[in-house]
Amino acid sequence: MRMSFSVAVAGASGYAGGEMLRVLLQHPEARIETVSAHSNAGSTLGEHQPHLRGLADRVLAPTTVDTLAGHDVVVLALPHGASGAVAAELAARDPRTVVVDLGADHRLVDASDWRTYYGSEHAGTWPYGLPELLHAGERTAVAQRAALAGATRIAVPGCNVTAVTLGLQPGVAAGVVEPIDLVAVLANGYSGAGKSLKPHLLASEGLGMAQPYAVGGTHRHIPEIAQNLRAAGAPDVTLSFTPTLVPMSRGILATATARLVPGTTPQAVRDAWERAYADEPFVHLLPQGQWPTTAATLGANTALVQVAVDERAGRVVTVTAIDNLVKGTAGGGVQSLNLALGLPETLGLPLNGVAP
Amino acid sequence: MRMSFSVAVAGASGYAGGEMLRVLLQHPEARIETVSAHSNAGSTLGEHQPHLRGLADRVLAPTTVDTLAGHDVVVLALPHGASGAVAAELAARDPRTVVVDLGADHRLVDASDWRTYYGSEHAGTWPYGLPELLHAGERTAVAQRAALAGATRIAVPGCNVTAVTLGLQPGVAAGVVEPIDLVAVLANGYSGAGKSLKPHLLASEGLGMAQPYAVGGTHRHIPEIAQNLRAAGAPDVTLSFTPTLVPMSRGILATATARLVPGTTPQAVRDAWERAYADEPFVHLLPQGQWPTTAATLGANTALVQVAVDERAGRVVTVTAIDNLVKGTAGGGVQSLNLALGLPETLGLPLNGVAP
Amino acid sequence: MRMSFSVAVAGASGYAGGEMLRVLLQHPEARIETVSAHSNAGSTLGEHQPHLRGLADRVLAPTTVDTLAGHDVVVLALPHGASGAVAAELAARDPRTVVVDLGADHRLVDASDWRTYYGSEHAGTWPYGLPELLHAGERTAVAQRAALAGATRIAVPGCNVTAVTLGLQPGVAAGVVEPIDLVAVLANGYSGAGKSLKPHLLASEGLGMAQPYAVGGTHRHIPEIAQNLRAAGAPDVTLSFTPTLVPMSRGILATATARLVPGTTPQAVRDAWERAYADEPFVHLLPQGQWPTTAATLGANTALVQVAVDERAGRVVTVTAIDNLVKGTAGGGVQSLNLALGLPETLGLPLNGVAP
Amino acid sequence: MRMSFSVAVAGASGYAGGEMLRVLLQHPEARIETVSAHSNAGSTLGEHQPHLRGLADRVLAPTTVDTLAGHDVVVLALPHGASGAVAAELAARDPRTVVVDLGADHRLVDASDWRTYYGSEHAGTWPYGLPELLHAGERTAVAQRAALAGATRIAVPGCNVTAVTLGLQPGVAAGVVEPIDLVAVLANGYSGAGKSLKPHLLASEGLGMAQPYAVGGTHRHIPEIAQNLRAAGAPDVTLSFTPTLVPMSRGILATATARLVPGTTPQAVRDAWERAYADEPFVHLLPQGQWPTTAATLGANTALVQVAVDERAGRVVTVTAIDNLVKGTAGGGVQSLNLALGLPETLGLPLNGVAP
Repeated sequence: MRMSFSVAVAGASGYAGGEMLRVLLQHPEARIETVSAHSNAGSTLGEHQPHLRGLADRVLAPTTVDTLAGHDVVVLALPHGASGAVAAELAARDPRTVVVDLGADHRLVDASDWRTYYGSEHAGTWPYGLPELLHAGERTAVAQRAALAGATRIAVPGCNVTAVTLGLQPGVAAGVVEPIDLVAVLANGYSGAGKSLKPHLLASEGLGMAQPYAVGGTHRHIPEIAQNLRAAGAPDVTLSFTPTLVPMSRGILATATARLVPGTTPQAVRDAWERAYADEPFVHLLPQGQWPTTAATLGANTALVQVAVDERAGRVVTVTAIDNLVKGTAGGGVQSLNLALGLPETLGLPLNGVAP
Repeated sequence: MRMSFSVAVAGASGYAGGEMLRVLLQHPEARIETVSAHSNAGSTLGEHQPHLRGLADRVLAPTTVDTLAGHDVVVLALPHGASGAVAAELAARDPRTVVVDLGADHRLVDASDWRTYYGSEHAGTWPYGLPELLHAGERTAVAQRAALAGATRIAVPGCNVTAVTLGLQPGVAAGVVEPIDLVAVLANGYSGAGKSLKPHLLASEGLGMAQPYAVGGTHRHIPEIAQNLRAAGAPDVTLSFTPTLVPMSRGILATATARLVPGTTPQAVRDAWERAYADEPFVHLLPQGQWPTTAATLGANTALVQVAVDERAGRVVTVTAIDNLVKGTAGGGVQSLNLALGLPETLGLPLNGVAP
Repeated sequence: MRMSFSVAVAGASGYAGGEMLRVLLQHPEARIETVSAHSNAGSTLGEHQPHLRGLADRVLAPTTVDTLAGHDVVVLALPHGASGAVAAELAARDPRTVVVDLGADHRLVDASDWRTYYGSEHAGTWPYGLPELLHAGERTAVAQRAALAGATRIAVPGCNVTAVTLGLQPGVAAGVVEPIDLVAVLANGYSGAGKSLKPHLLASEGLGMAQPYAVGGTHRHIPEIAQNLRAAGAPDVTLSFTPTLVPMSRGILATATARLVPGTTPQAVRDAWERAYADEPFVHLLPQGQWPTTAATLGANTALVQVAVDERAGRVVTVTAIDNLVKGTAGGGVQSLNLALGLPETLGLPLNGVAP
Repeated sequence: MRMSFSVAVAGASGYAGGEMLRVLLQHPEARIETVSAHSNAGSTLGEHQPHLRGLADRVLAPTTVDTLAGHDVVVLALPHGASGAVAAELAARDPRTVVVDLGADHRLVDASDWRTYYGSEHAGTWPYGLPELLHAGERTAVAQRAALAGATRIAVPGCNVTAVTLGLQPGVAAGVVEPIDLVAVLANGYSGAGKSLKPHLLASEGLGMAQPYAVGGTHRHIPEIAQNLRAAGAPDVTLSFTPTLVPMSRGILATATARLVPGTTPQAVRDAWERAYADEPFVHLLPQGQWPTTAATLGANTALVQVAVDERAGRVVTVTAIDNLVKGTAGGGVQSLNLALGLPETLGLPLNGVAP
């Protein structure tokens, strides 16, 4: 593989695929050679992604192994369950092909977690595309980056998972918060639901209202968050997790709280978060008193984090803002891809958001 | 006092005052005789509340005791600290005057709570305007209604307080959830912040983003929620409370969770909520599987509640939707006023929301 | 028929049907006896219209003549082309049944207009449900009200039509603006598109953006507007009409301009609009300098109108705000129904909006 | 001046200044050396522009000539009337300094237009920063680019002006539409109003509603549009212009119509627009049947244009979408700056929008 790499994006007419193209269009080494789709094959990308002017006339190829093979990198933005077989066939043709999976199939380590939450057989585990994931005993995230270096398979995390993990892991890794009885409530933009044609996702419904979904422990991102916090050193994790749809297209604002380990000072809490993210290029602990907003991350590969100690309640409260399609999907995927390809981790990734 | 009552609304050019007028305009016994304001005195109501066509030509009087005296009912939508003195003077002129305070001054029972959260001297405690408040040992809310019958002073609850209290109190009263280590995260519409001219409240900022405020245990509604849950039987209460502004003008969606008392069955949880609200005219536990949305309460005096048990997390999750200006302020105020005046509790109050 | 009337609403799970129910729930003489739907028959209304608490447990009957027959009033919120046959069968069973059609089938007078814009055979013309429609030579709207008195068929106008007609007709009737070369551009809320499951109507798409539709003279409301302005005295009408979807659920803000008849003074223009609407209960010309907003009409049966003369441009500019589902659909329908039944025109209709 | 240039941005805590920084951060030759503000001097940029992570720690200098002097390029995002004196002083210190004025002071050619619409003395006319401006007789925009080459003063157009000019000028230049009796109605995002603390700009007001402003020929962008269309060959121009605020932070959707010159075919109309924009890098005539949306331009320096002929109405209808802060302000400014500096016109400018 040369420094410059060719790439095919499957599922290019959807939100995740479209955002991957937007990020790759800014990447100095990526050559977007193939864009593919399922039912939209044969139409131009401009009909589905009119904002991607640089690719407006590209015709969508059908999503098949023949179409995708022969590229240095293949990005899969496919429905659950579809990526394993495609990746295997691509590897059979050329084992050096790097496959970036934006879907859920290969994120979980524990097959029983998969079966419990997805109800099918587990497809296996790939290197996990969250470079900032802290491993037990680490002060800063090194091990996960090592795991991604040279990888030919990348399982990009769920967007909610990225937000909640980044919010809570410094405290878990430092032992200043309890990893059990965590509570996370999220304000989510509608693009997280994809282009599904369901009544509750209509603009007439969503404009001007807030609505919860997947309440009561059923959301599939729960075992993935727990897995990440176990990686950070938690012996066991319990988590109450409630996402709520609010009237924005993009963005996640995750409020995640954990019990303060008794006797911990506020300074020790602040230190844990500062230490974890001091050198991170994309995860920024804000100055005290300033709180994250989703607007400040729109279009950027950044996560903004703040932490406060509520001594009366005995809890640490963290708020994390990300753009679900960038740091939560396509940007995080390219960040991991850079590591896999041996490129600078930040190459081509947007640091500054589009606001107001 | 006749069945029909005269009313003056002070602070009529603001959101709370305007909503009180909207509700009173639908009330068959209310005669709106005086509308007053501070800096907007002398202008017409139509300039500030163009939606209130029925009062568009009314001229705003200055907010003074002379202006407000002589009405059967006086509603105060004033800044903190202003209502105590006005009420005293009104009582001196006619002790039968019923004063409804939409502000915070007289909600708290414990003066030290007031000092801690508001930093001034406590003005005293008035009958608390949440008819649905459960008292310890009650299966349905009777005692609070008795406390409001014949009252000449009503302290209308904070809007966030109403949402969180209604969500959690059935479980506390029934002893199926722990009253400590509660966690509430709210999605709030911007009208809750009033007409304050602050940069973070501009439409250019708020459109398309979520932002938290008063994080870390500083919000003034915390002691009021705790007080309500103590009334419902909790020996002590601890609460982590985080409101977040989301892009809607009205509405609160409160996700409030509590630890399940070990050994409690899901059916026992459901029973607790069903029993508490089975006969409530405005608080509705939704059928299982249906979740509250703020849209379904817009303009109505209703609270929609749902509850789920997350056995893995060991928590009960409740979601409550209200319109912050109706059930959370003006509608709740008129509901209590009806009780105070001996009128049917539901008289003139909107049951059906405006959706989509 | 008694003063109190029974009513069936067909299409009750959609937006127009739901809003008709919301309005009728406030009507002191309406008894909602039947709610029906097509594919949603058998489910409860609460599943589809969770804001209508007063009818949450009603089960949706199938939409058939058998279901609808036997009521004093039947409201049809059906797809185009379906109401003619239903109305004929209902009349065969009881000719006194009053049918209110929220669809387009019977609005147009000219069958060739229908064929041009709808491409099917014309079903015939019913009394037109816009009480405020000015007829040629009238100073205030009397003739249309006479046409509706005692009617057993009412064709409720299109929502955009109501907004543009109310904006322009005073100038046409008074001869102060030219009825040709009219230009109207509208900002429309998404509920106007109904619950159609189309990609461009998703919240993820609509949030934070404006998009036009039916540009270039193709919108079916054009011949209906022209028909109304011809009724007001225009010998012929030409109109450029462009609706644009903007991120709100409800509301129409119609900016409609017409060439000033040379030599007309600004005062003569103002006089025309003041005269037309001075006595209208629901159409309000605002004081000079105050402009309509859709928020001020939300949930209300009002239209707010303002007019200005741009002498440099040689045009009169009118702006009209309505709630598309109330004055533009269900409220306008009930207003006409009141006239048909001999009830006070304003009975049960909301005058005050829900704002902010 | 080297290829790489140093730049100071005055007014960096506002929306226009912030967006200029966002665009310059992507520019490979720009070195942002100074950011200044008036009342916010002394605070960090991160407090006011939390999305600009790359400059979060920069301290805002006071906006003075001393602060701004010594840079190759100075961008002024100042209130009306302030830029003339600053530019003169900067030129006195170094005549090679390139000044980009995002304000209105130097856009108009005719001093009497200025006095009529702004009410003060005219500060003079600078080269006009709309590279795509067609001059009379041109098939594509060449003359305006020549006027900008080597310029040391650039007057960046008004955002509404850019949208309406780009929509209409091809037809005016080609003589297929009349330049008189133009009608433009715009849907505008709130960021166009800046960070002004005015009640009607609050989120509580703006969320969920549409409101017009500056109706009736009073908007200051009218003479600037007329000037541009005269440049394109119109002997005289009359224009009715109405902006409306809709619930989005960014974006302009301009619907601009003109009378079709009798006898013109639809193909001749299409040809005029195709010819004008065939080679433009940032102005894109969409394929027939596809309409512009503001979402597709968010964050990008693009304008999307569509045109249709309404033969019944005798009008050509154009719809143009831009991001008011990019193509309408900062992006258009950098595009012109590139020409002034002899750099490739598209250098560093975003072509692809952020959607959904």
